[in-house]
Amino acid sequence: MSSHHIVREKQEPALIIANGESCSFELLGQLLEWSPFVVVLDSAIHRVMSLGIKVDVLLGDFDSQFDLEEIEQSQYPIEIIHTPNQDKTDLEKAFDFLIERGFPAANVVWATGRRADHSITNMTNIVRYKSKLHIVMIDDYSIIYPLLPAPAVFEKWYVKGVQISLIPIGNAKKISTQNLMYPLDNDSLTLGYRSGNSNEVAEDGIVRVSYESGDLLLMECHD
Amino acid sequence: MSSHHIVREKQEPALIIANGESCSFELLGQLLEWSPFVVVLDSAIHRVMSLGIKVDVLLGDFDSQFDLEEIEQSQYPIEIIHTPNQDKTDLEKAFDFLIERGFPAANVVWATGRRADHSITNMTNIVRYKSKLHIVMIDDYSIIYPLLPAPAVFEKWYVKGVQISLIPIGNAKKISTQNLMYPLDNDSLTLGYRSGNSNEVAEDGIVRVSYESGDLLLMECHD
Repeated sequence: MSSHHIVREKQEPALIIANGESCSFELLGQLLEWSPFVVVLDSAIHRVMSLGIKVDVLLGDFDSQFDLEEIEQSQYPIEIIHTPNQDKTDLEKAFDFLIERGFPAANVVWATGRRADHSITNMTNIVRYKSKLHIVMIDDYSIIYPLLPAPAVFEKWYVKGVQISLIPIGNAKKISTQNLMYPLDNDSLTLGYRSGNSNEVAEDGIVRVSYESGDLLLMECHD
Repeated sequence: MSSHHIVREKQEPALIIANGESCSFELLGQLLEWSPFVVVLDSAIHRVMSLGIKVDVLLGDFDSQFDLEEIEQSQYPIEIIHTPNQDKTDLEKAFDFLIERGFPAANVVWATGRRADHSITNMTNIVRYKSKLHIVMIDDYSIIYPLLPAPAVFEKWYVKGVQISLIPIGNAKKISTQNLMYPLDNDSLTLGYRSGNSNEVAEDGIVRVSYESGDLLLMECHD
């Protein structure tokens, strides 16, 4: 158990700041308190630096105009990781990096909004990491996370009226729910054809969602 | 051919204004010129009216606080359609409405951004309408449309360097491309696992995309 100290250190989630729509400064501030290890993707660094935030890792292919020396000086010490591989998105590279460094969890902001292609790719790619890294994607209107690999049971306490969407990535089968306004009973959902968009917690208490195959995102959203 | 006049009238796409992130006023203005028949979804009407836009149809379940009489007076003549059915989203109901009225095409704005559940549901649901209504979803960063039902061939002229993403909704098979920087050759794409995000037009000229099964969105996006 000599690695006890290191393991404790990595119990906090890292924070990844991606390159989509910025969230409110208040939300970012809260997340920075919970996630002191900060990874920034590519040209988002300029927006992040203008907010006066100290960053631990900058990761990207830096194909835009970058003055890495200036960034290194003003953010010292910072780890700069050049990832030119085009087969993965910068966000996937950040997940791989955090898994390699032993992080159990990551919060992700600025990954939604703006470009629709990046937004849908970021939201849906997280299902592939669900057994390796506990990922929560957050913006001003949404909290998004994949349910554990099927067959799985999700349980969480909610206040009545909270809006919950069950979004299959591709197809998820034999989904059953308890304590939702529009219950599912061994039903299948298929993205584009039948999704569990805009469901709602029926009563204060535990919501239970089980499913037997496929990939399922849970989204807590509000207007 | 006595319906000649009516058919001509419906050759222009309708414009649907949904309830996500507003686009720039400039983009909205351009689309209003091309699509004079305007359908607004639910509480977006308040934002639309504050922009001084004349609306033809207001469609929604109006569960928020609505003064329909005031809207009717200031927008007269306006058709107000109450759609309480919870099995479909307001956007799907608008598509159904336009198909019933004989429109061949619809441009859609304000359907992306803000709530992630609505955004991903709106973007992906359009694949289901691809043989009934020519839908183009537009925001400040993105132009999104489904390719015709497979097997199909898509061809369009582009300038070199335009960024194009091929996003499978679920799974699309035997995809081949010409004139893209990262070509596909009889490849499959699966959302969440392998998507054709951030491809790029190789040379000025025709881009060709063919696929043999599944659902495929094409997105033209820029930063």
